[in-house]
Amino acid sequence: MEKYDKSGDKSYALGTTLTFELLNRKSDKATRIYISPKQKRDETYLKLVNLAKSKNIPIIENNEKIFKSLSGKDNTMVIGEFKKFQGEMNKGNHIVLVNPSNMGNLGTILRSSAAFGIDGVYIIKPAADIFDPKCVRGSMGSIFSIEFKYFSSFNEYLFEAGNDRDFYPFMLQTNNSLKDIKEVKTPFTLIFGNEATGLDDSFLKVGTPLKIPQSSVVDSLNLDNAVSIALYHFLAK
Amino acid sequence: MEKYDKSGDKSYALGTTLTFELLNRKSDKATRIYISPKQKRDETYLKLVNLAKSKNIPIIENNEKIFKSLSGKDNTMVIGEFKKFQGEMNKGNHIVLVNPSNMGNLGTILRSSAAFGIDGVYIIKPAADIFDPKCVRGSMGSIFSIEFKYFSSFNEYLFEAGNDRDFYPFMLQTNNSLKDIKEVKTPFTLIFGNEATGLDDSFLKVGTPLKIPQSSVVDSLNLDNAVSIALYHFLAK
Repeated sequence: MEKYDKSGDKSYALGTTLTFELLNRKSDKATRIYISPKQKRDETYLKLVNLAKSKNIPIIENNEKIFKSLSGKDNTMVIGEFKKFQGEMNKGNHIVLVNPSNMGNLGTILRSSAAFGIDGVYIIKPAADIFDPKCVRGSMGSIFSIEFKYFSSFNEYLFEAGNDRDFYPFMLQTNNSLKDIKEVKTPFTLIFGNEATGLDDSFLKVGTPLKIPQSSVVDSLNLDNAVSIALYHFLAK
Repeated sequence: MEKYDKSGDKSYALGTTLTFELLNRKSDKATRIYISPKQKRDETYLKLVNLAKSKNIPIIENNEKIFKSLSGKDNTMVIGEFKKFQGEMNKGNHIVLVNPSNMGNLGTILRSSAAFGIDGVYIIKPAADIFDPKCVRGSMGSIFSIEFKYFSSFNEYLFEAGNDRDFYPFMLQTNNSLKDIKEVKTPFTLIFGNEATGLDDSFLKVGTPLKIPQSSVVDSLNLDNAVSIALYHFLAK
């Protein structure tokens, strides 16, 4: 029985739209396309089969079990299997996530990062698994377009990214408001902590700490909402 | 076996923190507090029991089954049962959600709305169930502090809210950018459509339609992320 294995080297794009994203954006990592026997042999089917063939990706049409074991959803008709991959360090604008624990958040953050044109998302371990099929789905396919990479520590990230950029850690232990950043110099790195614990005080000395101004009724925003607000402030024109 | 019933009149705050929120903010709606036999008889326990007693809310300590049937999570030790409620129309700043279908989004939107001090969240049916325990949990308790109400149509909302306010429908069918709103007049209403379909063209004539500027790699932001960005733009100081 095929199951997603966190420590393995394969993951899965569940659904037709996601599988098209995989084939169009990361076909060099695609290893196999599963099509359910229940999938109608319609135009979408032909388009998918032709696309997969043109990229030399094998198509499996007689494995009904994999749909139950991987998706559970009755309406998943197509699964794209791919080899896990990581991107490279680049010189553009970055999001750094320190120990994110929720894979739903991780997927949505990839989606927002793509929406606002961030160049790289770098993740400090321990962290949620970006390749979990739920995260791949939550990213709406942006996992196949945006550059990302895991690091063992923030220092390891820093070593590769270099100091020649502006750093903005988002944390509650400061009074600097995001609203006061009027001019943005590139490249920059926006840093966010774990959903429950945030960033520790050591980040107060990393560049310019910032807070998203809000009333005090709740402790803080959901992580992906905080990241989206920061992306909007720094990148929307 | 106690189960959450969408059409019933009861719902549940799952967990100790949420139950404290219920007792502190909406004790008139609390009907019963369940404490697991596994809960340690510690300081938190005493605080909870005393708070419930001071509000005359019955405490049930011998119903282990309800924890399995309602929560499923092994670490839930406290459940607050409450009677479903709705708020009133008010004259402040509003969020209107037209046909939101995802209860996770709904919870997070309540949380962000509380964070930025929105006065009311009004929901146009058909819509996700705000009282689903998953939504109550996702709101981090802000469901007990923020005013909200369901309406059968946008016109019904309009009839109660009145026209003496600025309306901003968020939709992709416009070129007006949120970034161009430099001065905010209150009260205002920010309107958002369904996760998959957005707002239909009829909303182009409701006040000033706005778009969150973004690159075109993905279709649009996740609903709760879009709402948070709008709240930040309109309300953060």
